[in-house]
Amino acid sequence: MMDSTFTINGRIWLERDGQKLLGRGRVELLERIRDSGSIRQAALQMAMSYKQAWDMINDMNARFDSALVTSRRGGKGGGNATVTEKGLAVIEQFHVLENKFKDFMADSVGVVEF
Amino acid sequence: MMDSTFTINGRIWLERDGQKLLGRGRVELLERIRDSGSIRQAALQMAMSYKQAWDMINDMNARFDSALVTSRRGGKGGGNATVTEKGLAVIEQFHVLENKFKDFMADSVGVVEF
Repeated sequence: MMDSTFTINGRIWLERDGQKLLGRGRVELLERIRDSGSIRQAALQMAMSYKQAWDMINDMNARFDSALVTSRRGGKGGGNATVTEKGLAVIEQFHVLENKFKDFMADSVGVVEF
Repeated sequence: MMDSTFTINGRIWLERDGQKLLGRGRVELLERIRDSGSIRQAALQMAMSYKQAWDMINDMNARFDSALVTSRRGGKGGGNATVTEKGLAVIEQFHVLENKFKDFMADSVGVVEF
């Protein structure tokens, strides 16, 4: 039996064409845009630049089969942004995946013997 | 169904007291010490400093319940190093864990729908 003070931890992400497409950080960005309606606010909350946030969104919008975020330029605070139905589904499915991964890690502690 | 060009990737590691203890990099270090008999050679092969390698080994030796690497100072090339039975078992078990993780990731592609 593994010593009970050992735990297993990890990260999981989605790739397309061998390049990272979606991980915990991008999902958090989508959630903050969903909640604030603002890419600028979401970026601020995550201590990233507006450009960094846009680059991530453009990458996701281009590489999923439809856009995850739509936005309008202008208006106060630099326009508003909406997470699409597709984006909301992606957020939810990523959590399903992460929950399965958490179960996997918890189950694996008892399997590996050190 | 998820687009077949999506894949899931990830990393998994062992923690103790909430601190990372063993991941792919440290396992590779152990394997290179096992194969070369030399901490200096192993460090060189992984483009890390001798001190970095020693810090990792000391951390593992202190935090597992027995040493994973033993070494003798002196001799040509700065002494020789041996991976203990415990260390060999840790290498093997980490691969068991990683193989289970690979299976988990492959299985999960069909579960998540984007």
